[in-house]
Amino acid sequence: MNYELIDSYPFFVEPFHVDFTGRIFLGVLGNHMLNAAGNHSQRRGWGIGALNETRHTWVLSRLAIEMNEMPRQYEHCEVRTWVKSVMRYFTNRNFSIHRADGTPLGYARSVWAMIDLETRQPCNLLTLYDGDILRYVVPEEEDICPIEGHTSFRFREPQFLRTIDTYYSDVDINGHINSIKYIEHILDLFPKERFEQQSIHRFEIAYKAESYLGDRLSFYEQVIDKNETDIEVRKVAIKRGQDEEGFSTAEREQARPEVKTDGTVVCQAKVCFK
Amino acid sequence: MNYELIDSYPFFVEPFHVDFTGRIFLGVLGNHMLNAAGNHSQRRGWGIGALNETRHTWVLSRLAIEMNEMPRQYEHCEVRTWVKSVMRYFTNRNFSIHRADGTPLGYARSVWAMIDLETRQPCNLLTLYDGDILRYVVPEEEDICPIEGHTSFRFREPQFLRTIDTYYSDVDINGHINSIKYIEHILDLFPKERFEQQSIHRFEIAYKAESYLGDRLSFYEQVIDKNETDIEVRKVAIKRGQDEEGFSTAEREQARPEVKTDGTVVCQAKVCFK
Repeated sequence: MNYELIDSYPFFVEPFHVDFTGRIFLGVLGNHMLNAAGNHSQRRGWGIGALNETRHTWVLSRLAIEMNEMPRQYEHCEVRTWVKSVMRYFTNRNFSIHRADGTPLGYARSVWAMIDLETRQPCNLLTLYDGDILRYVVPEEEDICPIEGHTSFRFREPQFLRTIDTYYSDVDINGHINSIKYIEHILDLFPKERFEQQSIHRFEIAYKAESYLGDRLSFYEQVIDKNETDIEVRKVAIKRGQDEEGFSTAEREQARPEVKTDGTVVCQAKVCFK
Repeated sequence: MNYELIDSYPFFVEPFHVDFTGRIFLGVLGNHMLNAAGNHSQRRGWGIGALNETRHTWVLSRLAIEMNEMPRQYEHCEVRTWVKSVMRYFTNRNFSIHRADGTPLGYARSVWAMIDLETRQPCNLLTLYDGDILRYVVPEEEDICPIEGHTSFRFREPQFLRTIDTYYSDVDINGHINSIKYIEHILDLFPKERFEQQSIHRFEIAYKAESYLGDRLSFYEQVIDKNETDIEVRKVAIKRGQDEEGFSTAEREQARPEVKTDGTVVCQAKVCFK
């Protein structure tokens, strides 16, 4: 392993981080991957802290995780991560997940944009800091990530599932609903039986727009086949204290008005069981 | 510090583990404390694994956390834990939370019962394994935990706040709604402004009954004064697929029937802001 370009982030599968089948929650695994990515960037001078000084930050745009086997309670594992490639407005970062003995358990791909904190516009990564980031791209033969790339989503009249309110524990330090919480809310759409009979083989998510504490999110489902389901998450704008139908927050809790379906798309996901 | 009886569990405050004010989520801190407790027991032959062999397990009954200051993003901290005392059916375990330089940030108290997995009845800790657990009780002068003990809750016509459904990510490996998730759902009852203007000074919870994936939970509030609120969580029993009013799961999502108020009390909590 090329330790100059590839970082290893060890983790232990804690009791409260596993689901009722004893396997790690995908959201927790995603969190370890984002931490690994954050550490990897920071060590190379591209961390959030350094970027804030020049008023830039990383934004996660896409994430695809494919697991042959999910880590189980009390296992010692590691996430490895590296920069696969850099384009003008995006960078591709890949991951592999291993048991402590090195056995690969799965892989992941991600796409990140760098934005200007003032304008919220993407920056040219090839010229920022004189293209310094290009020094960290791995040689092609070291980019071992044998899973499909990101697919494009096409939703045709997906079925409405439910609307949720977002609260204090959904948001991160920027006040946005955090990337991991979307994963949790999406998996919460599936019934218990699904997780009893199958396990998650691949999970893909495309983050399209930000949502904030207090936003209501509606979830729509498009079943592709018996193993694969696409989910679209849309924002239902709501004023705090009173919603668009004139209900107070308390009234709204007790009798939910019919859900509006014309909200901004916040994210789209594909969940494949096996 | 008495390393034979007191364990230290270091932790790092990760980006996704802080709230929008940059302070650690209380649920995440609670999780670190439960991990510290688990490790401490396991090292002394009283871990869940060893106990399962004799068909016993620990059940958390009460937890009270009092913080002078909440750890912030990127801080290195530690949880220390020890056994304060052992009674016939309960053991008291205390905690202190420190910054890496040793500065105390807060303390916690907890009460645990040991139950027989077959009968779900409490066991006599003073005779189990010939009273071995008594060897791990700290001398009184080492039990440094300068916070109030557990208070008793008295609810008089508390106000109904809302009902939530429980899903896949709410449950632990035993299929129970996990102890930490209750903390998250309870703090989610408070509006954003509360966390902007104040911080959590003390949080207390008494676990009274188990709830399971798919149970609906109703939350009731009793405001004690401007800083202190008691919360009671009650279970609303519901059959999967169709609820007690004859609604299907999908219909129930769209038009919630009036909430029943006679459910089993699952837990009670006190939240004090400062």
